[in-house]
Amino acid sequence: MTTIETDAPVEDAVLVLPRGFRAAGVHCGLKRRRPDLALFASDGPAAAAGMFTQNATRAACVTLCERKLVSPLAQAVVVNSGNANACTGPDGFTTAQAVTQGVADALGIDESLVLSASTGVIGRPLPAVRLVAAAPALVAALGDDAMPAARAIMTTDAFPKTASAQIDYEDGTVSIVGVAKGAGMIHPDMATMIAVLLTDAALPPELLRSTLRGAVGSTFNCISTDGDTSTNDSVFLLANGASGCARLDDVDEPRCSRFARALTSVAERLALDIVRDGEGAEHVIQVTVRGARTDGDARKVANAVMTSPLVKTAFHGCELNWGRVSAAAGRSGAEVDPDRLSIAIGGVEIVRNGVGVPEHYPLVEPMLRESAVRLAIGLGLGNGDHRGWTNDLGTAYVRLNSGYLT
Amino acid sequence: MTTIETDAPVEDAVLVLPRGFRAAGVHCGLKRRRPDLALFASDGPAAAAGMFTQNATRAACVTLCERKLVSPLAQAVVVNSGNANACTGPDGFTTAQAVTQGVADALGIDESLVLSASTGVIGRPLPAVRLVAAAPALVAALGDDAMPAARAIMTTDAFPKTASAQIDYEDGTVSIVGVAKGAGMIHPDMATMIAVLLTDAALPPELLRSTLRGAVGSTFNCISTDGDTSTNDSVFLLANGASGCARLDDVDEPRCSRFARALTSVAERLALDIVRDGEGAEHVIQVTVRGARTDGDARKVANAVMTSPLVKTAFHGCELNWGRVSAAAGRSGAEVDPDRLSIAIGGVEIVRNGVGVPEHYPLVEPMLRESAVRLAIGLGLGNGDHRGWTNDLGTAYVRLNSGYLT
Repeated sequence: MTTIETDAPVEDAVLVLPRGFRAAGVHCGLKRRRPDLALFASDGPAAAAGMFTQNATRAACVTLCERKLVSPLAQAVVVNSGNANACTGPDGFTTAQAVTQGVADALGIDESLVLSASTGVIGRPLPAVRLVAAAPALVAALGDDAMPAARAIMTTDAFPKTASAQIDYEDGTVSIVGVAKGAGMIHPDMATMIAVLLTDAALPPELLRSTLRGAVGSTFNCISTDGDTSTNDSVFLLANGASGCARLDDVDEPRCSRFARALTSVAERLALDIVRDGEGAEHVIQVTVRGARTDGDARKVANAVMTSPLVKTAFHGCELNWGRVSAAAGRSGAEVDPDRLSIAIGGVEIVRNGVGVPEHYPLVEPMLRESAVRLAIGLGLGNGDHRGWTNDLGTAYVRLNSGYLT
Repeated sequence: MTTIETDAPVEDAVLVLPRGFRAAGVHCGLKRRRPDLALFASDGPAAAAGMFTQNATRAACVTLCERKLVSPLAQAVVVNSGNANACTGPDGFTTAQAVTQGVADALGIDESLVLSASTGVIGRPLPAVRLVAAAPALVAALGDDAMPAARAIMTTDAFPKTASAQIDYEDGTVSIVGVAKGAGMIHPDMATMIAVLLTDAALPPELLRSTLRGAVGSTFNCISTDGDTSTNDSVFLLANGASGCARLDDVDEPRCSRFARALTSVAERLALDIVRDGEGAEHVIQVTVRGARTDGDARKVANAVMTSPLVKTAFHGCELNWGRVSAAAGRSGAEVDPDRLSIAIGGVEIVRNGVGVPEHYPLVEPMLRESAVRLAIGLGLGNGDHRGWTNDLGTAYVRLNSGYLT
């Protein structure tokens, strides 16, 4: 789980969903040509949990899903790309409900069992009629491959993001499949993108929620591309129990923790794919902070470093400008003693007691040209630690985001 | 004071210093060719105040100046560019003291009266010997024009930054001259650059301090280029009383507030020049937040908007992507009710009650191509307000900062 995955996924691969789940991706007309509407459906009601953006200007679908998930059952998740349905006022709610109703009708299930997420431009009305009209075709396209849905939720993503894990229990095999999108507006203040995690394990609702919270906390909530928390971040976990394995239970701790580790590894691979696919990014930078007074302080330092445009442009230029790392740590709000600060790249110490170690610079410089870079910051003050992932800031990010609407 | 100044200063202009002050800029060898060492000196001891970066990894000169300014007298400020003398460990203090001692010797005054500031690359030892060797020539070059010193403190600045004001009192004229540098690592968490403010007014130390605090609070502390608070931010204010005007006194409130307004206008012009000269920037964006629950909330919203890479790239592309402004406001941590949010550009409302006003978009789009853009955000919750300035994020910022060391 500490490996940074950097291989691009095979585009024409098939990813078989866990038993009892089907998915589809179609084109409904929000984007010009590419698929823009995805559906994930269980054959029967599944235990469900969700985590959502903490942004106050959240999209209507986020508010509606949070309300629905007071009851821990769901059967489908519909996701559109191309329009976020955020900042659309009361109409946004009507629209979001029309979509889930249309999908529920096409599936022949109750609307309360259909969750939804939207991603794309903020502040433009979502033409629900197009999504509702496409619902029957969407349902007709359902199959056991996750890839069409993974492609249909992409926005500025360069590649679809999927990950899976299997757990062999003595009474059978449990499968987990995750699908995510996200390339910009990525910052850890909740889910920071859209992800759908599906498993054929059986879990009681409370355990499902706490396991999701744990997995998201150390993965999706530890990445940043630009410090901008989206209006639409949503992570869903559905568990339909179709594996036939015995229901996971708090009492059987080893069984539960195997599942939690597998779910975390799926979430981590998706999170790293999101960072790797950061708009214009050429490097994934793992930032580890140790020796902070508290874990919260370690997180503050990591976040300041991970969101610093100066740090990120230096990594883009493969420059060893560690002073920017020190400066970002110093302004983070965490307790930092400059005379105890140490910085290492790829395990090689370049700053000791706050001062550079120039004889090590030549060892480190080639590492800065790698696609994965490990940056470690030691504060020497306590036992608080944190690990996160960011990427470099290149001209492509600026070009992409200064011409987003056109 | 609400005007956004956008005219470039005339490069060969002369700016006469207040009476009793002289300044100089020379080349001491930190940079390849350009002047890199500046001195501002009063003919006699002056009342002095300073404000400094809150960054924990602050430079040695910052710590030393703060200690010196416990006593409110100073006679000179020496500033070098090309090397920040930050993150240089205990040697940084020895170096900084060698520089002020060398300048004091050349001036024939006590070292305790010499303040210093450094700006440039972080983490490299400052070769004090070059600065000390240049001190006699620096003192010999002292004259009544501020421009050579203004040019010698530049780093990535495209133009020297100066501003001045005169106040005609019944007993004479008081003059204020300010000089600043700063193009990157600009964020309001204290002074956010280096600025030297000189006046021939006479002020008691406490009034000098509070007047500086007030002027900095609404100007230098309200600008952001990249959210990165520097290790070296310093603002100095020296008042030598050489105007001959009666000493300003708290008791004579109208006299004091005329001085405070003039000082603030000088600081504001310098602050706006810094934003305008933001690395790669093509637009200055004034962000006004009104109707927040508190002034602190208004500042949070303004800072989130001002540092959002997505907002800043949209302004770079002259795109009306107001959803990014809403999203940044929503994640700011301030109380925000999306249904009460309003957004205006150049006085034209484009969002009302959280929803776009598309018929106004065509009115606003040409304004986005101007060099100065006014963005107003209304929260509709209370009486808290804040005003700040930022700039757009272009590819030139990335290019400059990904190749800073080479």
